[in-house]
Amino acid sequence: MKKHLVILQPSGRRGHVEDGVSLRAAARELGVDIESICAENATCGKCKVLVEEGNFERYGITSRREHLTPVTADEADYFARRPKLLEAQGWQVGQVRLSCQAKVHGDVLISVPEESQGNKQIVRKSATQRNIDIKPSLRKYLVEMAPPTLANPQADRERLTKGLAASMSLVRRGEADLPSPDSLTVDYPILRSLSDILRAGKFKVTVTVWQDREIVRVEPGYVEGLFGAAVDVGSTTIALYLCNLENGDILAAESEMNPQIVYGEDVMSRIQYTLTNKDGLETLHKVVIKTINQLLKQAAKTAEIQTDDISEMVLVGNTTMHHLLLNLSPKYLGHAPYVPVVHHSVDIKARELGLSINPSGNIHVLPTIASFIGADTSGVLIAEEPHHQPENWLIIDIGTNAELVLGNKERLVCTSTPTGPALEGAHVEYGMRAAPGAIERVEIDGNTFEPRYKIIGEENWNTGQVKGICGSAIIDAVAEMFRVGILDSRGRFKGGVTSERILETDRGSAYILAWARETSIGHDIPITSQDVRAIQLAKAALYVAARTLLRETGIGTPDKIILAGAFGSYIDKTKAMLIGMVPDCPLENVYAVGNAAGDGARIALLNVEKRREAAEVARQVTRYELPTDPDFQNEFMLALNFPHMTEPFSHIAHLIPDHQPDPMAEKFKGGKK
Amino acid sequence: MKKHLVILQPSGRRGHVEDGVSLRAAARELGVDIESICAENATCGKCKVLVEEGNFERYGITSRREHLTPVTADEADYFARRPKLLEAQGWQVGQVRLSCQAKVHGDVLISVPEESQGNKQIVRKSATQRNIDIKPSLRKYLVEMAPPTLANPQADRERLTKGLAASMSLVRRGEADLPSPDSLTVDYPILRSLSDILRAGKFKVTVTVWQDREIVRVEPGYVEGLFGAAVDVGSTTIALYLCNLENGDILAAESEMNPQIVYGEDVMSRIQYTLTNKDGLETLHKVVIKTINQLLKQAAKTAEIQTDDISEMVLVGNTTMHHLLLNLSPKYLGHAPYVPVVHHSVDIKARELGLSINPSGNIHVLPTIASFIGADTSGVLIAEEPHHQPENWLIIDIGTNAELVLGNKERLVCTSTPTGPALEGAHVEYGMRAAPGAIERVEIDGNTFEPRYKIIGEENWNTGQVKGICGSAIIDAVAEMFRVGILDSRGRFKGGVTSERILETDRGSAYILAWARETSIGHDIPITSQDVRAIQLAKAALYVAARTLLRETGIGTPDKIILAGAFGSYIDKTKAMLIGMVPDCPLENVYAVGNAAGDGARIALLNVEKRREAAEVARQVTRYELPTDPDFQNEFMLALNFPHMTEPFSHIAHLIPDHQPDPMAEKFKGGKK
Repeated sequence: MKKHLVILQPSGRRGHVEDGVSLRAAARELGVDIESICAENATCGKCKVLVEEGNFERYGITSRREHLTPVTADEADYFARRPKLLEAQGWQVGQVRLSCQAKVHGDVLISVPEESQGNKQIVRKSATQRNIDIKPSLRKYLVEMAPPTLANPQADRERLTKGLAASMSLVRRGEADLPSPDSLTVDYPILRSLSDILRAGKFKVTVTVWQDREIVRVEPGYVEGLFGAAVDVGSTTIALYLCNLENGDILAAESEMNPQIVYGEDVMSRIQYTLTNKDGLETLHKVVIKTINQLLKQAAKTAEIQTDDISEMVLVGNTTMHHLLLNLSPKYLGHAPYVPVVHHSVDIKARELGLSINPSGNIHVLPTIASFIGADTSGVLIAEEPHHQPENWLIIDIGTNAELVLGNKERLVCTSTPTGPALEGAHVEYGMRAAPGAIERVEIDGNTFEPRYKIIGEENWNTGQVKGICGSAIIDAVAEMFRVGILDSRGRFKGGVTSERILETDRGSAYILAWARETSIGHDIPITSQDVRAIQLAKAALYVAARTLLRETGIGTPDKIILAGAFGSYIDKTKAMLIGMVPDCPLENVYAVGNAAGDGARIALLNVEKRREAAEVARQVTRYELPTDPDFQNEFMLALNFPHMTEPFSHIAHLIPDHQPDPMAEKFKGGKK
Repeated sequence: MKKHLVILQPSGRRGHVEDGVSLRAAARELGVDIESICAENATCGKCKVLVEEGNFERYGITSRREHLTPVTADEADYFARRPKLLEAQGWQVGQVRLSCQAKVHGDVLISVPEESQGNKQIVRKSATQRNIDIKPSLRKYLVEMAPPTLANPQADRERLTKGLAASMSLVRRGEADLPSPDSLTVDYPILRSLSDILRAGKFKVTVTVWQDREIVRVEPGYVEGLFGAAVDVGSTTIALYLCNLENGDILAAESEMNPQIVYGEDVMSRIQYTLTNKDGLETLHKVVIKTINQLLKQAAKTAEIQTDDISEMVLVGNTTMHHLLLNLSPKYLGHAPYVPVVHHSVDIKARELGLSINPSGNIHVLPTIASFIGADTSGVLIAEEPHHQPENWLIIDIGTNAELVLGNKERLVCTSTPTGPALEGAHVEYGMRAAPGAIERVEIDGNTFEPRYKIIGEENWNTGQVKGICGSAIIDAVAEMFRVGILDSRGRFKGGVTSERILETDRGSAYILAWARETSIGHDIPITSQDVRAIQLAKAALYVAARTLLRETGIGTPDKIILAGAFGSYIDKTKAMLIGMVPDCPLENVYAVGNAAGDGARIALLNVEKRREAAEVARQVTRYELPTDPDFQNEFMLALNFPHMTEPFSHIAHLIPDHQPDPMAEKFKGGKK
């Protein structure tokens, strides 16, 4: 048999293939995966490649478009129906080919455009920037069947699964363990509409398959697009990301206050609500489902799709949010020994939970780790991957409740501590979630006490109309007030500082961050002594929890500190350290990664293998219970100060006003090393 | 290690086992399975055995109760709480032992009572009487867990699956492929009530596991009983059997008219109803679900259990009934090429169909074979097993629609033909389903024309009050009227026959089977010339379909003819042949097996492996479409006669009045041999 040299760019893979094989088959043989969903019949066009022409000496090849079989009628038809595609790229038919149609008859040098490459990745902005393989649980296939006849009146379901298995084996030729028609199942509601859909599509349909085994959607004709949603159900904020499951793009990001907040601000008061109110659980469950459904509707509108086009959803949340989401009673979470209903990840049909995506779509909820270390922390773990690191990382996921994970690939410990809703912009008079109009960054001039601020949705500083202030800006503001001397190290407004911005309000002393005229709400926006106190309580809780874990594990100083949280924009690590939110360490070792729990949900949505990883790592983490003894209370009191009563915070010492190291500090620094 | 001789009766298994093993473990080692669900902690008592004492020379053993370890405290406690059990059987503690507790320390001869034996069987009364292994898809296990503590606050679900896996491995010690805690899943609604149930049972619960993998019920404490329902959804009658899944007993049998009959008497008119009425499908679906739920309620009441105690259901029905049951549109079944939605068996959660058993219970619907060969025929196949026979069997399942299967283990062909509802007692003025009060057998005196009849529910003939007449009795009556000369061979009332029982009614000539005074309904019960005509049309359709299959396959004469049908009591084969319902053959080769489709549903309920067998055999059967040409119509006309215009029916010739063999008969007899 005659053989030809095929070289594939940009991978550089090369090799000899037999005369007459299709370019797509040749590429797979050489280890390059080219997309396709249409069973290689020139319908989907996802397998487009470019033939490079000329004598390429450095590759040792002379490549000509004539070295491929001529453009087929189907192929010509595909391009004829898309004149704009060719125009926009400056391509000619013959130069660009559908690799399922073109067969090799001579040596060729082929470029595979990025959108045609299989096994796509997304880049995850985390403490260590990383690529995430796109391996969603869902995949679409075009299936064409012969219509039924009196001689072959086989049932529609069997006709479909037979056609689907054939299509899968063509699209994924060469892969092992492809399903047979008999191993494919059909979700019951799909059966109900199947016959009409097959006929509407004239027995040509696009089938969405979950986990290579279950048919969860059948659409008439050839329909592109595969969508999923990732949701972080926080105690205060619910954030939803609508994703393109084929390339990982975020098509819409929507968030909304968690409506449960009116029934209780923290998890304990919501658990209490379910216990003391008839239908309390049902009420809290329903409001969160309703809000997620609203977010889904908004996101679908933004992305110009239907909510029914969304075929999977991955959710995270702390253990209480997780239980309320799933309509599981948190009764036994509310008192010792604090037992959740389930740790395992949960897979449920959307219709069972009343979530308004494709009713046959799967709802995957990541595993919970311990009583108060929830699915949100599972999300943080697969987003940051401390379990793959040789270094010791301290990850602090900050919300109304904070979870801390410390360790490396050998061992991970975790704990949790309540911080209150202040860090999420609640409990602060004009606090709000991170949404357009919210101040997200604050700086204060040390001489004039005039602030500069940046509003979400504005490119420049000090422009736009203020609606409120989100969590990250509250930290900024308090840190700046301390740095410029408006607040003393105990968090009190200093006497003798005069500025038109500092005044007395019914919430105590206050610093006016924005005047009413700068806002869209017609009120001055102050940071009050009450707000400062709320931040002090929260940051002390975080600091003490972190310090205790470091001491108890003997790690002392982590190699990296990672600040995560959905509470605002990315937190400013210098400001966080200036108020003593994290243990002292070189600033370059501190990373702010934003909503890692939500990112984890998104990663699990895009890569089904990460769900298995979450299950494994969730089982490996050891829970550490913070003590409640007087010594521990004392540590908490010391930590209320800015940045700390005794720890010197040497790495940001130059920012601390009137800094005097405390002689007692040594005993705390570095833990039990 | 010291070894002891253990002999087990009634199996006679014997062998030497190591000192100190439990009797139950010893029995398994010797190949005798003893029941248990309590993880061998003396709770369930299912493993009771008897120690035979004495010197048994013919077995070569001296057996003493002292050769076992003494009765344990738990064991004594078990028997102390059941004094009646010991009394009733005349057993003493020490003589009867729990085999999980008693350990072997010397030679023993053990009797295993039938109720303690694992791998039970039921006897199936079929053409060849047969044993069915009891292997239900469900099994119960007693699980005891340590309650959660602050040191071990593991979630309830994981605590349960861990305990369950341990319990399963004890109960089924030695079996391969037992599930691990991680391979066990929990159906979502179970999660919702799990925490309260674990605590109500003080962390001792009885768990029902489906297919060795999914937890579908958790009950506090130790709860015996495992129940399922088998349902035959006929066009005219719905029959339900409530079964004990542990021993195969039928605890209740209930039946009811199919309420869909008011929307159309045959399958085509019901399909039509769904097409011409908005919500027609929904209407027909809902009435059948409602009726099944009523039958479930009645059956549960009879068996003194709750409907929630029923954890699985297997249903059969013809393809149209199957579709309406599953709320699948029969639209494309109604016209050529007559395509059903699905052939595969369907498994759905009870809650998805609104069937009021345990909401987590599985609903299994047997596979359909072809457009008009439905799940009922799959049931007939696994009940009768023609696919295991070397002989050629002709199975005729008679209902409003009749299905015929012909062949052996090498090849099976099938066809179907409409017969109308007369055979199920509908369309006959006082026709009724086979229920107490229905006449089920009829004989007529050839001299006096006086009838004798037997009523369902009565031991003797001619006693009880008549409510109506069921299908099998209608066949009897018509056959007898022909035999004694009331009807001629064309089905007409003969002139010149005088009797007070023969008179003219508004439904034509009639023979009064029961006078009004013998009934509970106050009306004479006649067999009219219209009734006779309906029977003629039905029997001709059956005969021609059977004869055609025999001819087309070249089989000619089957080795056995099996008459099945839920339409009455067991059909009288002599009468059936006398009216020419089946092809001529020796009477000893004809078997009447009653509701084989319903029996098949029950077999699939009791033995999960039979479901796989149904799926396999359903795929192997070849559908044969009956022709519609004039020759075929002519055959039908010949078959309207009693017993037939041309076929001599030599095996019952002595019963045929004025019998004269037709010279043309040879061409039909024996088909294309």
